[in-house]
Amino acid sequence: MSQTKFLLSEDRLPTTWYNAVADLPKPLDPMLHPGTREPLTPADLEPLFPAELIAQEFSTDASVDIPGAVLDVYKQWRPSPLVRARRLEKALDTPARIYFKNEGVSPAGSHKLNTAIPQAYYNKRAGVERLTTETGAGQWGSSLSLACQYFGLVCEVYMVKVSYQQKPYRRGLMETFGASVTASPSDRTAAGRAALAADPDSPGSLGLAISEAVEAAVSSNGTAKYALGSVLNHVLMHQTIIGQEAQLQMELAEDYPDIVIGAVGGGSNFGGLALPFLGEQLRGGRPVRAIAVEPASCPTLTQGRLEYDFGDTAGLTPLTMMHTLGHDFVPPSIHAGGLRYHGMSPIISALKDLDYLEARSVPQTACFEAGVTFARHEGIVPAPESTHAVRVAIDEALACKESGESKSIVFSLSGHGHFDMQAYIDYFAGKLKD
Amino acid sequence: MSQTKFLLSEDRLPTTWYNAVADLPKPLDPMLHPGTREPLTPADLEPLFPAELIAQEFSTDASVDIPGAVLDVYKQWRPSPLVRARRLEKALDTPARIYFKNEGVSPAGSHKLNTAIPQAYYNKRAGVERLTTETGAGQWGSSLSLACQYFGLVCEVYMVKVSYQQKPYRRGLMETFGASVTASPSDRTAAGRAALAADPDSPGSLGLAISEAVEAAVSSNGTAKYALGSVLNHVLMHQTIIGQEAQLQMELAEDYPDIVIGAVGGGSNFGGLALPFLGEQLRGGRPVRAIAVEPASCPTLTQGRLEYDFGDTAGLTPLTMMHTLGHDFVPPSIHAGGLRYHGMSPIISALKDLDYLEARSVPQTACFEAGVTFARHEGIVPAPESTHAVRVAIDEALACKESGESKSIVFSLSGHGHFDMQAYIDYFAGKLKD
Repeated sequence: MSQTKFLLSEDRLPTTWYNAVADLPKPLDPMLHPGTREPLTPADLEPLFPAELIAQEFSTDASVDIPGAVLDVYKQWRPSPLVRARRLEKALDTPARIYFKNEGVSPAGSHKLNTAIPQAYYNKRAGVERLTTETGAGQWGSSLSLACQYFGLVCEVYMVKVSYQQKPYRRGLMETFGASVTASPSDRTAAGRAALAADPDSPGSLGLAISEAVEAAVSSNGTAKYALGSVLNHVLMHQTIIGQEAQLQMELAEDYPDIVIGAVGGGSNFGGLALPFLGEQLRGGRPVRAIAVEPASCPTLTQGRLEYDFGDTAGLTPLTMMHTLGHDFVPPSIHAGGLRYHGMSPIISALKDLDYLEARSVPQTACFEAGVTFARHEGIVPAPESTHAVRVAIDEALACKESGESKSIVFSLSGHGHFDMQAYIDYFAGKLKD
Repeated sequence: MSQTKFLLSEDRLPTTWYNAVADLPKPLDPMLHPGTREPLTPADLEPLFPAELIAQEFSTDASVDIPGAVLDVYKQWRPSPLVRARRLEKALDTPARIYFKNEGVSPAGSHKLNTAIPQAYYNKRAGVERLTTETGAGQWGSSLSLACQYFGLVCEVYMVKVSYQQKPYRRGLMETFGASVTASPSDRTAAGRAALAADPDSPGSLGLAISEAVEAAVSSNGTAKYALGSVLNHVLMHQTIIGQEAQLQMELAEDYPDIVIGAVGGGSNFGGLALPFLGEQLRGGRPVRAIAVEPASCPTLTQGRLEYDFGDTAGLTPLTMMHTLGHDFVPPSIHAGGLRYHGMSPIISALKDLDYLEARSVPQTACFEAGVTFARHEGIVPAPESTHAVRVAIDEALACKESGESKSIVFSLSGHGHFDMQAYIDYFAGKLKD
């Protein structure tokens, strides 16, 4: 069997992030202040983020240097492998070439660490002592916990209560990495207390946990800031390390993707892989089909409206122009908790609106079916979120079998499912609903 | 910061296993037939193993070719990284150079897959349809499940009942990989039924699960064979891929270990790393301190006697000359289930007897303390078994700090702890007993 892994040496790790904003065919609509509804200024974000991240959020430069201290930590697991899924190809009997970029090798188990590290770094440099954040499935919370540990920051995670109760091991991981974890809604914030007053048994939601984490930061007299794991421009920019590596690795493979695929919740995983390739196309280079895959139960891109909306439930965040199901939308409790978000990255929303990418929604049982197939041939149990990308990669490979075309497919395996085995157990037991 | 990961390209993957038997200063005592107590012949093992594995078990050749089909699967994750633990070194303020060989990157999460793959391969070649085995913590069962899936064999795992109940996610992983998992003692074998008759609430033990798996194989009319995850010569030989890679990687690091460290249960993890280095020494090359670390609650090497004993509880297996606590010894239910074994590899036992290696026993809370320290600095949560090696690596690094010596320490991170978070939660809650 020919080469299966395409590994880059540390000295080929990209040293800049790619900012897709620079290549968009038209400028993004500005974020709006939640109170005044006026275009947001950098100063408006100061209660939430340190100056360097705010500058990145507003930047239109095509590339931004990655600090040396961040590169040093990236090198613990980066460049991540690009793997040719030869066993899966053989099992599907497809002429397609399937590659996956394995972000599950990160210490925290997913791509989320790519942005957690620089966010912790810039906050530490700005003299911040604590970071607050929310987590649903726990991938983001785990990543920020570790990043804070590395840079000597206190990490406070508001974890959606239903996940807090159902995923004690994910909570244990965050605590092992040194974070404190609070079930949301909690009595520590006004937003949490209001939710508990309305429903003492509230299972919580990602939007509500964001409200609590934001409130905890802005009421801290400047000692704490807030960190968000997706959606925002600077977060997507940090994730482009994925796609930039994949570009170099596809050169090693002497191939180029016809199709790139990623699951979308807030958009940073999909964007991280796809934006460097789409940037090539936007600058007049080779075109690529980019497919964003979302759960049928939270169809933000396929059924949401493109309009200004809040990022959280309580309306504390700026308004952004994005595909949204409405900030009071409460998605069903599917197992891919990381994809249960009402909104979408403005960059991804704009590219969808301009027809530079396709969106597809898939039901969760079909995703777990694909996840099991992948696990049995490639040996890796994908996170429930990642099974969405696996599903569409398999579908596209089967379409190639049908048509006889030998396309090149690259998908993001955004994380492993080691902390999500209950989902697989429920799938085998026939307990999952679509 | 200088280089942290020492990666070998696929084309430098060793293509032979190292058989330490060839370099032992005196021959191993023969295994004895459990019925006749006569020296075991290859034919005696035929009900259990295919001919090629039996030949390896009796081989005195110094190297054995790795089949191409096995190398192809190894390449899914091998060569595994050798990592310089610079952040840990800095936190300990030690002049020591600490390296770890990360076997946790294997698809099944531990070194066990290194032998599961060839065992499944040779059985498939011999026309075997099913493999039976036992598992305690679940690392071995997961690995054999995946290996059987890859080679089209049915896998039947007898899982120690207390683990079956306490580790549903590990069981879920084996089922995701396509295995069937039975709680042991079960009513499917005479050994299991006898145990249940004596104690219907028996929590089971590794020795008893071995009895059940062996019985299931030998009573199968040849359609099933048995697979063991440690102890035997051929198993240790398969694991030497670890140490052979580490030798090449230490060359890349322009360093050589003063000390190699591994946790020991049956001996294959420790042997896999240490034997290639000890072989160098046995052939007149550079000496190395090899430290085998075992739990204080199951002190086979430090307190067991070197004598003939059975590998299982029921006395179905051959007798081997080894360090043993007695085949009816039931170790306390510590979290490092993979180290709860009464016996020890004959090769490791012989080297201990000849003073070629040191044995050290450590209590589990000290191990988890070390595991948390490691996780917070290197980002990887070690399996409970692996924390034993981490503990001694840290102790040796601290001894260097005391003495001012800059030693080179290489330890085996045999697996990740993603399925063992309850152990860490119990540790934080102060619930662990030594």
